[in-house]
Amino acid sequence: MTKELIVVALGGNAIKQPDEKGTTEEQLRNVDATASELVKLIQMGYDLVVTHGNGPQVGDLLIQQEEAQEYVPPKTLYLCGAMSQGQIGWMIQNRLQHHLTRHGIDKPVCTVITQVVVSEEDPDFRDPSKPVGPFYTKEEAMELVRDWGYIVKEVRPGKEKGWRRVVPSPEPIDIVEKEAISRLVKQGVIVIASGGGGIPVKLNEDGTYSGVDAVIDKDLAGFKLAQVVQADRFVILTDVEKAYLNYGKPEQKALDVLSADEAERYLNEGHFLMGSMGPKVKACVRFVRWSKKEAIISSLDRAIDALEGRTGTRIVP
Amino acid sequence: MTKELIVVALGGNAIKQPDEKGTTEEQLRNVDATASELVKLIQMGYDLVVTHGNGPQVGDLLIQQEEAQEYVPPKTLYLCGAMSQGQIGWMIQNRLQHHLTRHGIDKPVCTVITQVVVSEEDPDFRDPSKPVGPFYTKEEAMELVRDWGYIVKEVRPGKEKGWRRVVPSPEPIDIVEKEAISRLVKQGVIVIASGGGGIPVKLNEDGTYSGVDAVIDKDLAGFKLAQVVQADRFVILTDVEKAYLNYGKPEQKALDVLSADEAERYLNEGHFLMGSMGPKVKACVRFVRWSKKEAIISSLDRAIDALEGRTGTRIVP
Repeated sequence: MTKELIVVALGGNAIKQPDEKGTTEEQLRNVDATASELVKLIQMGYDLVVTHGNGPQVGDLLIQQEEAQEYVPPKTLYLCGAMSQGQIGWMIQNRLQHHLTRHGIDKPVCTVITQVVVSEEDPDFRDPSKPVGPFYTKEEAMELVRDWGYIVKEVRPGKEKGWRRVVPSPEPIDIVEKEAISRLVKQGVIVIASGGGGIPVKLNEDGTYSGVDAVIDKDLAGFKLAQVVQADRFVILTDVEKAYLNYGKPEQKALDVLSADEAERYLNEGHFLMGSMGPKVKACVRFVRWSKKEAIISSLDRAIDALEGRTGTRIVP
Repeated sequence: MTKELIVVALGGNAIKQPDEKGTTEEQLRNVDATASELVKLIQMGYDLVVTHGNGPQVGDLLIQQEEAQEYVPPKTLYLCGAMSQGQIGWMIQNRLQHHLTRHGIDKPVCTVITQVVVSEEDPDFRDPSKPVGPFYTKEEAMELVRDWGYIVKEVRPGKEKGWRRVVPSPEPIDIVEKEAISRLVKQGVIVIASGGGGIPVKLNEDGTYSGVDAVIDKDLAGFKLAQVVQADRFVILTDVEKAYLNYGKPEQKALDVLSADEAERYLNEGHFLMGSMGPKVKACVRFVRWSKKEAIISSLDRAIDALEGRTGTRIVP
């Protein structure tokens, strides 16, 4: 019955559309549409492991930490990450169960709170690169530096609210809960894991792990998840049907099939934005090199066509 | 090697002490002490499934929803419950792993985001009984009724801030993720589940589940968890070593061993506070009736002694 085991990495638009405020109802509606598409894949016989981003949700939690600080001690970024895994994991789990039940498919679904190991030696800890949370004026930004010890950067020069907090975005090294996740997958459970790239933890000298304030790229962590479960394919679903060369320029060219070597060359030539398509292509290259199998970048509504080879950008050995 | 499978229900003091503000550091320190005690049980050969409360954490999240409402749409109570499962589950999981590693015990730990089914016909939906979140003045409370549609009650008559939001506290009927949880437990994974009594969901006519704004008692849900995993014993760890008759009065009397029938009689006679010891005794009675085995109420620091029969209140068939 099972065709393949696929790790699906969902982009932000699977949960929150850019023009939405992010109410519970809006998010549930988006996740419902996402789950409906994913269950079509399950109906076709694919086994899924699902991971997802958490940028807008953690952004909201960070604003709430600030606004209520007079009454409630603001929680650390990694604890907000853990909260977002509970929130988004529940939504995906509930809506997947919903569509499975409606289609008469009896498969357990389970969200696993996931920690991902990073190294304190990662260069991103010396020069943080990842913007998180809201935009601030320079004055507000300087206040955050003084009162909260944040590192801030001007990300939209010239704009009034052009400053944001930046945090390290270190490389994912390992998934702490790999045993539990792979046991569940082997038992036929649809697992949601490594949400938002995982809760970042560092390995201490005594072999234990502590939370660190950082944000791990969810696609790079998704590759680690694909390794843990020995996935047959790695599929990144985002808001575009394909990756492009010279994206947004008149000469832009959609990419259909390319080798890991070609993809890496384009990466090095700067064809893909580092905050956007770059890490997706990088994660795919890593998967293809490791598995000698295919990775795909496409959009949610074209997922089936992409899996069947009719669209999407396919990166092959 | 394994003696017994035990479901442990942790009280609020395992995570936040009443006199603390609830910073990340404070909570992690408390959870670390809790985990250190639990790992002693694991060292003795007990297999554990862990559940926990979430009252103060959800209370904080509710305040944050209100304070930041100008910028971030307030999330529903059940979504805050899902967030608290991620937050607290991660803390327990991380600190259990910490002490297991230090003791050279190789056992996976895993938090499962858990939904618990309730009935919309439950009488508590008609007359909500469970206070949540902060205390308000009458004026603030009336504003919340008008603007947010909350139900409020005067819980400390005469006090300036004597009002609180109340929500339904329906009976737990079933655990949606029972398959995944029991598979993990059978595989030797230490599972953290049903946090805060679970995310409350109602069963729709088409067999799917939707979130509802309610709070399920964590000890009554803990009994459901004990059923799901076929626990050998059910242990509720709280801030007192034993349950008492006439608690707080001069004639108070500690309870050592009592039958389910006796416990039920004392319950009906009103010996146990309904917001506190009442549901604990009720959950124990249910477990004993179902399993024909023992349930224990004791404090975290006396857990081993209680399990070995040297202290605690033991409710027996």
